[in-house]
Amino acid sequence: MQAVSQTHSTRPLFIPVILGTVRVGRRSESAARVMTAELEKREGIETELIDIARLEIAADDEGETTKDPVFAAKMKRADALVIVTPEYNHGYPGLLKHVLDSCLQEYIHKAVGLAGVSAGVFGGTRVIENFLPVLREYGLVTIFWDVNFANAHKLFGEDHMLLNESSLPRIDQFLKELIWMAKTLRHGREHISLE
Amino acid sequence: MQAVSQTHSTRPLFIPVILGTVRVGRRSESAARVMTAELEKREGIETELIDIARLEIAADDEGETTKDPVFAAKMKRADALVIVTPEYNHGYPGLLKHVLDSCLQEYIHKAVGLAGVSAGVFGGTRVIENFLPVLREYGLVTIFWDVNFANAHKLFGEDHMLLNESSLPRIDQFLKELIWMAKTLRHGREHISLE
Amino acid sequence: MQAVSQTHSTRPLFIPVILGTVRVGRRSESAARVMTAELEKREGIETELIDIARLEIAADDEGETTKDPVFAAKMKRADALVIVTPEYNHGYPGLLKHVLDSCLQEYIHKAVGLAGVSAGVFGGTRVIENFLPVLREYGLVTIFWDVNFANAHKLFGEDHMLLNESSLPRIDQFLKELIWMAKTLRHGREHISLE
Amino acid sequence: MQAVSQTHSTRPLFIPVILGTVRVGRRSESAARVMTAELEKREGIETELIDIARLEIAADDEGETTKDPVFAAKMKRADALVIVTPEYNHGYPGLLKHVLDSCLQEYIHKAVGLAGVSAGVFGGTRVIENFLPVLREYGLVTIFWDVNFANAHKLFGEDHMLLNESSLPRIDQFLKELIWMAKTLRHGREHISLE
Repeated sequence: MQAVSQTHSTRPLFIPVILGTVRVGRRSESAARVMTAELEKREGIETELIDIARLEIAADDEGETTKDPVFAAKMKRADALVIVTPEYNHGYPGLLKHVLDSCLQEYIHKAVGLAGVSAGVFGGTRVIENFLPVLREYGLVTIFWDVNFANAHKLFGEDHMLLNESSLPRIDQFLKELIWMAKTLRHGREHISLE
Repeated sequence: MQAVSQTHSTRPLFIPVILGTVRVGRRSESAARVMTAELEKREGIETELIDIARLEIAADDEGETTKDPVFAAKMKRADALVIVTPEYNHGYPGLLKHVLDSCLQEYIHKAVGLAGVSAGVFGGTRVIENFLPVLREYGLVTIFWDVNFANAHKLFGEDHMLLNESSLPRIDQFLKELIWMAKTLRHGREHISLE
Repeated sequence: MQAVSQTHSTRPLFIPVILGTVRVGRRSESAARVMTAELEKREGIETELIDIARLEIAADDEGETTKDPVFAAKMKRADALVIVTPEYNHGYPGLLKHVLDSCLQEYIHKAVGLAGVSAGVFGGTRVIENFLPVLREYGLVTIFWDVNFANAHKLFGEDHMLLNESSLPRIDQFLKELIWMAKTLRHGREHISLE
Repeated sequence: MQAVSQTHSTRPLFIPVILGTVRVGRRSESAARVMTAELEKREGIETELIDIARLEIAADDEGETTKDPVFAAKMKRADALVIVTPEYNHGYPGLLKHVLDSCLQEYIHKAVGLAGVSAGVFGGTRVIENFLPVLREYGLVTIFWDVNFANAHKLFGEDHMLLNESSLPRIDQFLKELIWMAKTLRHGREHISLE
């Protein structure tokens, strides 16, 4: 047991960032790149930006039959997710939901954190509330810190990075919590039986 | 005024039924056909089944740029909508949201009623709750009666019609309310100014 | 018919403002007074601030048995409501819900608008989303404009009035929509039958 | 580390059941007693029924100032909660929210499971969805199995116990998941640092 446990603690956590819109001119791309860059700075974390615009998800069916095996394998390997989502009419982007609905078993007992993106002043607060029942049903645990990229058109430069550091303390707090939850749930998945 | 009012009261209400999933084997098709058939039985109503699987909505962008002009024209002409929606992981189908997000101005100050469809016993109660903030943001008024097609695999025959009449009283109540709200809001749109 | 209709158009709309918290030091009191004052400026509107701290609602039962007849009579007479609500842990204040649950029939087919109040930057966006399914179940129609009093500790003077006018355009838009919906639904209640 | 870990694994989990309504004639009392009885059958669990009707929570203020020290101490000691909640107008009972809002720090990184109770056929599905954003903001993790006591007036005998065993498999699944999450999060609280 002890040996197993040590093995696990040294294996890096895999925390991909999902860029949740295909919209032309999407600011969420910058937000997703920032989140990925911040994750890359941390030790013991492996990350990757997953752009839903580049996935092979069929649009002539819904649910697990549309599964993209590459995406599904990443979800299966993930310990946690960051979902970067714009707010469309107070809800989640349809194509993001369509993609996420292609998996299910892959998500169970893993952590997720939400970064909302909006052109207005509320930074996606409403899409985050709207997503909660869905993420719970996937078996994901949504952490209780969010990132809210409000006024998104003013936040990022042409290199997609933040124009100033005012968002960094919140991102830091968010990632600490996400990593804590990812480690905690990994321990549960590996060491605690459902009985 | 009187003449205008009479003209309006004789023009039929247009209440299309949106079949909100492209899923292979979808029971919602039967539910949508039933709702359309029930609407057709009423005087002064014009209806039509709009199957989202048959729309030309682009999947390489999101929002109003993806607009299908035929769909948009129907939304503009509609006085009310019936949305037939399955529940996918407690949320709305992604492709349905993607389609609905292609319009906005077309929906304002019109009525909508929701018919949830599920294989389980809850008849889509959760997708209905999940849809409310989105429908409000579209400017639609969601009526407070729903139809819940629970155990949907047992409800419909091969001809897509109901195998028994137990759902009819609820459908009747739902349509009465929807038609009331459609007439009320049409009066507001046509006769009451925003001042 | 014509005579009746003219009678109605001259009777003022009754739109009370509900102050939705009993919290000591509540900023929502200022917000509620501002909303009431803005309503009083309009012709054809009768308003009144209803402070839930002053109601006689029993706390040893829940639902319609706890009804305060004075409050219920006001709800029955109302054409629309403004609910001023702080956001407590992303939800509605418990005592506000307790009070609102004391009525039901009184609310049906009337309009409601929400003014969120928060010490933070989001102005109650989340409590508004959280309230939507409840307000719908009451039979109320929630309009699609909100007022968001963010950073509420900086907005109001000791006289409870706004320190500057930056919120006024939004309040104006909100009240126009609320009054439009109140008039529209009153027409429906009085002239359109449920059939 | 090993010694500490063993100490922890032998200390029982404390999982109180909150009876979330004061309504006269409440069926939720039976539901709460059943949940408590089922928890008592399991080894390594300590439980207790907390009836919100018996708490000393002030109604002349809101939030942490109204704290009942006995209730707060139980929340602090708890590893997980079962909240038994009826559905009032698709939302949570006001007095239950009022009580829960009296704590905050006490809940963080603990598990919660929801048992909905309704006279109708949906077993509180909607109050559960409505509660999710609030429970998340408390820092609680809501598990993804629920118990739904539908048609509650037919389920329980005069001794408050179940009239038949049809609910037991779901309760068992729910408690397994809740206990798994309680153990997992306890491990995280005790062994994983936020860094």
